[in-house]
Amino acid sequence: MSGPVVGIVMGSDSDWPTMEPAARALDEFDVGWEAHVLSAHRTPRRMLEWAEGAAGRGLRVVVAGAGGAAHLPGMIAAATPLPVIGVPRALDRLDGLDSLLSIVQMPAGVPVATVSIGGGRNAGLLAVRILAASDEALRARVEEFQAALADSVVARDAQLQERLATAGE
Amino acid sequence: MSGPVVGIVMGSDSDWPTMEPAARALDEFDVGWEAHVLSAHRTPRRMLEWAEGAAGRGLRVVVAGAGGAAHLPGMIAAATPLPVIGVPRALDRLDGLDSLLSIVQMPAGVPVATVSIGGGRNAGLLAVRILAASDEALRARVEEFQAALADSVVARDAQLQERLATAGE
Amino acid sequence: MSGPVVGIVMGSDSDWPTMEPAARALDEFDVGWEAHVLSAHRTPRRMLEWAEGAAGRGLRVVVAGAGGAAHLPGMIAAATPLPVIGVPRALDRLDGLDSLLSIVQMPAGVPVATVSIGGGRNAGLLAVRILAASDEALRARVEEFQAALADSVVARDAQLQERLATAGE
Amino acid sequence: MSGPVVGIVMGSDSDWPTMEPAARALDEFDVGWEAHVLSAHRTPRRMLEWAEGAAGRGLRVVVAGAGGAAHLPGMIAAATPLPVIGVPRALDRLDGLDSLLSIVQMPAGVPVATVSIGGGRNAGLLAVRILAASDEALRARVEEFQAALADSVVARDAQLQERLATAGE
Amino acid sequence: MSGPVVGIVMGSDSDWPTMEPAARALDEFDVGWEAHVLSAHRTPRRMLEWAEGAAGRGLRVVVAGAGGAAHLPGMIAAATPLPVIGVPRALDRLDGLDSLLSIVQMPAGVPVATVSIGGGRNAGLLAVRILAASDEALRARVEEFQAALADSVVARDAQLQERLATAGE
Amino acid sequence: MSGPVVGIVMGSDSDWPTMEPAARALDEFDVGWEAHVLSAHRTPRRMLEWAEGAAGRGLRVVVAGAGGAAHLPGMIAAATPLPVIGVPRALDRLDGLDSLLSIVQMPAGVPVATVSIGGGRNAGLLAVRILAASDEALRARVEEFQAALADSVVARDAQLQERLATAGE
Amino acid sequence: MSGPVVGIVMGSDSDWPTMEPAARALDEFDVGWEAHVLSAHRTPRRMLEWAEGAAGRGLRVVVAGAGGAAHLPGMIAAATPLPVIGVPRALDRLDGLDSLLSIVQMPAGVPVATVSIGGGRNAGLLAVRILAASDEALRARVEEFQAALADSVVARDAQLQERLATAGE
Amino acid sequence: MSGPVVGIVMGSDSDWPTMEPAARALDEFDVGWEAHVLSAHRTPRRMLEWAEGAAGRGLRVVVAGAGGAAHLPGMIAAATPLPVIGVPRALDRLDGLDSLLSIVQMPAGVPVATVSIGGGRNAGLLAVRILAASDEALRARVEEFQAALADSVVARDAQLQERLATAGE
Repeated sequence: MSGPVVGIVMGSDSDWPTMEPAARALDEFDVGWEAHVLSAHRTPRRMLEWAEGAAGRGLRVVVAGAGGAAHLPGMIAAATPLPVIGVPRALDRLDGLDSLLSIVQMPAGVPVATVSIGGGRNAGLLAVRILAASDEALRARVEEFQAALADSVVARDAQLQERLATAGE
Repeated sequence: MSGPVVGIVMGSDSDWPTMEPAARALDEFDVGWEAHVLSAHRTPRRMLEWAEGAAGRGLRVVVAGAGGAAHLPGMIAAATPLPVIGVPRALDRLDGLDSLLSIVQMPAGVPVATVSIGGGRNAGLLAVRILAASDEALRARVEEFQAALADSVVARDAQLQERLATAGE
Repeated sequence: MSGPVVGIVMGSDSDWPTMEPAARALDEFDVGWEAHVLSAHRTPRRMLEWAEGAAGRGLRVVVAGAGGAAHLPGMIAAATPLPVIGVPRALDRLDGLDSLLSIVQMPAGVPVATVSIGGGRNAGLLAVRILAASDEALRARVEEFQAALADSVVARDAQLQERLATAGE
Repeated sequence: MSGPVVGIVMGSDSDWPTMEPAARALDEFDVGWEAHVLSAHRTPRRMLEWAEGAAGRGLRVVVAGAGGAAHLPGMIAAATPLPVIGVPRALDRLDGLDSLLSIVQMPAGVPVATVSIGGGRNAGLLAVRILAASDEALRARVEEFQAALADSVVARDAQLQERLATAGE
Repeated sequence: MSGPVVGIVMGSDSDWPTMEPAARALDEFDVGWEAHVLSAHRTPRRMLEWAEGAAGRGLRVVVAGAGGAAHLPGMIAAATPLPVIGVPRALDRLDGLDSLLSIVQMPAGVPVATVSIGGGRNAGLLAVRILAASDEALRARVEEFQAALADSVVARDAQLQERLATAGE
Repeated sequence: MSGPVVGIVMGSDSDWPTMEPAARALDEFDVGWEAHVLSAHRTPRRMLEWAEGAAGRGLRVVVAGAGGAAHLPGMIAAATPLPVIGVPRALDRLDGLDSLLSIVQMPAGVPVATVSIGGGRNAGLLAVRILAASDEALRARVEEFQAALADSVVARDAQLQERLATAGE
Repeated sequence: MSGPVVGIVMGSDSDWPTMEPAARALDEFDVGWEAHVLSAHRTPRRMLEWAEGAAGRGLRVVVAGAGGAAHLPGMIAAATPLPVIGVPRALDRLDGLDSLLSIVQMPAGVPVATVSIGGGRNAGLLAVRILAASDEALRARVEEFQAALADSVVARDAQLQERLATAGE
Repeated sequence: MSGPVVGIVMGSDSDWPTMEPAARALDEFDVGWEAHVLSAHRTPRRMLEWAEGAAGRGLRVVVAGAGGAAHLPGMIAAATPLPVIGVPRALDRLDGLDSLLSIVQMPAGVPVATVSIGGGRNAGLLAVRILAASDEALRARVEEFQAALADSVVARDAQLQERLATAGE
């Protein structure tokens, strides 16, 4: 794929460890991405402008991570027609419950596709599924990925059987 | 659009009032849909089979609603490569917090795009955005929809001004 | 006071019953106000523009109410140097806990002065206290208001004594 | 007892430290068990097949552990007539509240016998009680176990008295 | 079956509407039961005595419902070797979260099989599964029950299809 | 004072670090106490017997600590006419919210005087206040204690002033 | 008993329905009480003065009810050496969880004996137990009360047996 | 500015690390402040007196931090007409949820401007905004501060781009 099709945005570069797994998941499927530090609260205009131009620049999905009073995913969704995936990041307190509710409880009209607290990797995989909805080749790769997941579970079960057998159980 | 491209599934026909707004939102964008009662807990095999065949039958997005120990969205996501949107339905107790956590806290590998508690309409709109990610005409309609949303807010503001003026304030 | 000095904003005219007590509290202190329907999610640009111009138009405090993934107070605070008071509005579910956390948990740099769930009246009174911080006459009125509050408690105690005496207790 | 009568299943081998205490409790009562890695989300068909065959293979109770959007216990219960015991495993965030609600809040028709967060040992002991419901010899051993529990409390009280006496209190 | 094999206990006769569905579920499977008002807090000795004698009187499972600081299920479990099923009953406040935590979070050594908040029917069905663990005929009836559940879902789906077809959708 | 007048009970000797501050507070006021390991779940009869005999042995207040499904304070209160103070102990998960609700949400008729999570010291001080309700000399000591608390705050303020002055602020 | 020995205080006369059951419980034991509307937030000085004088006026226990940011019980406890019982009153939102935490989580040094949300009756009964700690005649009445509670449970059980027998069960 | 205009108060000197960022934020804007250890629970009279005199001594805003049953901000607000900013401090348990609710859920009539859990810095910045509401020069500095915040986000984005480019992505 030429050019980035997924935009990954976050309020601070300290969010990168939470969001990098999204980028890594996209890499596994050879889906191009770009990443930006964009703050709803510190750069509201720049954030809106980035979101308004996202579709025009060729992006097709946006992944946005934020914590606490997490407004970035919802504000991006307000300013683009693209599907926006929200990643709640847990801060030091409240285990991410504040972040989750701030992202998922959007009013009718402006949806955000929310994944689990700290679910950067799943955000990337959801972006792949969204792109694959109109791309059979990519969908085939998602199916391969799912088969590999299943295989790894089978392998782990085999390892457990071995461990239990060795332990004489 | 010919043939349904969005599958709407729910565990019981009593969920239809929660899910019908998703269908209505799709109708507004002339996106075809089908709806089914499918229970993860009462018809596990049938549910898996439906999910496994969804992509092959031409569906491109699935919207799944459930309440309490809400397993339907996650189980559907386990059995299809399509993007799955989860709608937490509040039961009589706990205000849907159980439903939300049961849907959104999926393990790495199997994402569910979760919307707000009772957010059937937003689930439909998110499905439209997902389809519009690869369909410029549909994306233009999403942008028109967003402009209309903005207009309605402006109109409501005008009404408020009138009401306040009338009240002599 | 000539011209409004407090701006009251809300995402929908359905929020007016929650916010009107703020206006009424300002009226009690003869503080001028204006009210607007402004949506962070449906009119992001208009909302930002309103906020950016607020100080220049003579406003000195903003009161913003919102529910669910409540982004309006924080986004207003991002675009004005004025103090912003946030009023969490409870939606049908979760009793306003989502609204409260979405408003109060702002990141360092962009504070929102949050009041109680549904605390429209206290938001108005807090705006008065803020204005009174630099206005001795207004502060004297706040003190009178506090004395009246105390008197009403004393009166209620007297009524309780009467009721208990009547009941022969 | 010949052949395993309790099946212990978990979504990942990383769950083994949570589930091993269940196995150890069964060992204390000489109840045979088998353990498997089975994922509702990564191996849905394999999981259903395992559950559907469980009773036929001689199992009489299933213990299933899972965390987050914890679907394994409920999905197993959907596919077997055996009693299923669910063990909520706490993930890094939310202290297991998500896991608990995802397991315990099952819809009418498909019960899961839920134990405490991280309660692997109690899951094993509950399995023993279930088997003992129709096995007087085993029930006598449960009673001995309960007597030993009581003795250990008495012994700890004696130690506390000694410690307090030594401290001159 | 001759003689009751399931004991249903509750702290007050006002709990009967919560617990009666357990009795009804047992009736569906022709499982004999008895029901008693027994309070951990108001009749502690009588409660302990009932529990200590339960197994000897032929009971094989106990179902105990309670709300708030819900101690009855745990205290019964402390005094009998039988499996005890706890039903959290929601009081006017907190939606049963207090009841759930008071029942499910038992210490190691004394398990309570907890079902959903208000889950009286599931408590009865779980008792049936426990009895069926050692009773093939009863297990066959559980399987029939599960098949009937599945059929009812299929029927509801058919009704939904009809309703949608009628609505011209 | 001769002989213990406060009984301190806990479910396990591992609770002693939580409960010892209660004993230390009683020591500060020369109030005699005894401490016991007594488990509602592992020694239900012994626990009841201890509680039933408490008043007769000269105890006048009981302090009971427990965690998780914390039944000890409520069960003691069920079996004695003495005032019972409950101390919620936080376990590894849920930060003591389960313990707090299990202790404080007692049904009408059987009160438990609940203190803060981990509030062993306050439990001891509350016992002193209860004894002082009918003992003027002890009440005078409580007043001295309160005066000393106030003095320590004043001293800390003085230290803060010094620190700030030194820092040139 | 001559003269009131229990003071019942509340922030507003609208709290009387929550607090009257405390008075009724005291009446059942012929314990004299007085009741006052006293607000920590609206009459802070008057509240402190009332509390400072309480012991001197012959009161021996204080019962204080409050809701939301419920400061009354803790502030009373700060200004009297008497034992203070706090009754969390649920407001329209949050089911009293805010009230409970605001009352029970007191810092070391200033305990409040907290009862259940809305537990006015238990507050009165706890006051009786506290007074009975040094009054054998009153303690005997508490024991009679406990016996009557037990009898009422036995009677309800008898009624349930009758109802079940009549229903042919 | 001559003389302190912001009073920073806290219940213990152990709160200073939470509150010092408020002082530092005021320093950045050359706003004078004073800080005091004042306890609502341990020095209620002294606390009230400080609050009653605050406005007369030239203070214009108060910042109050507290944890647990956090009564200091509300009690200060009860005794001064100045705007009071509350900072919830998280204790070892409950992540500050108790502190937040105890501060923010104030009754109508006595508002507290609440900031995020641990939000000392934002409390200082909010005090600056409040003072700037009537001080154009200070407001200009708030605007510069906001511009600098925006610049730092842009700089961090540039760094991220560099890092990604270096990584060959």
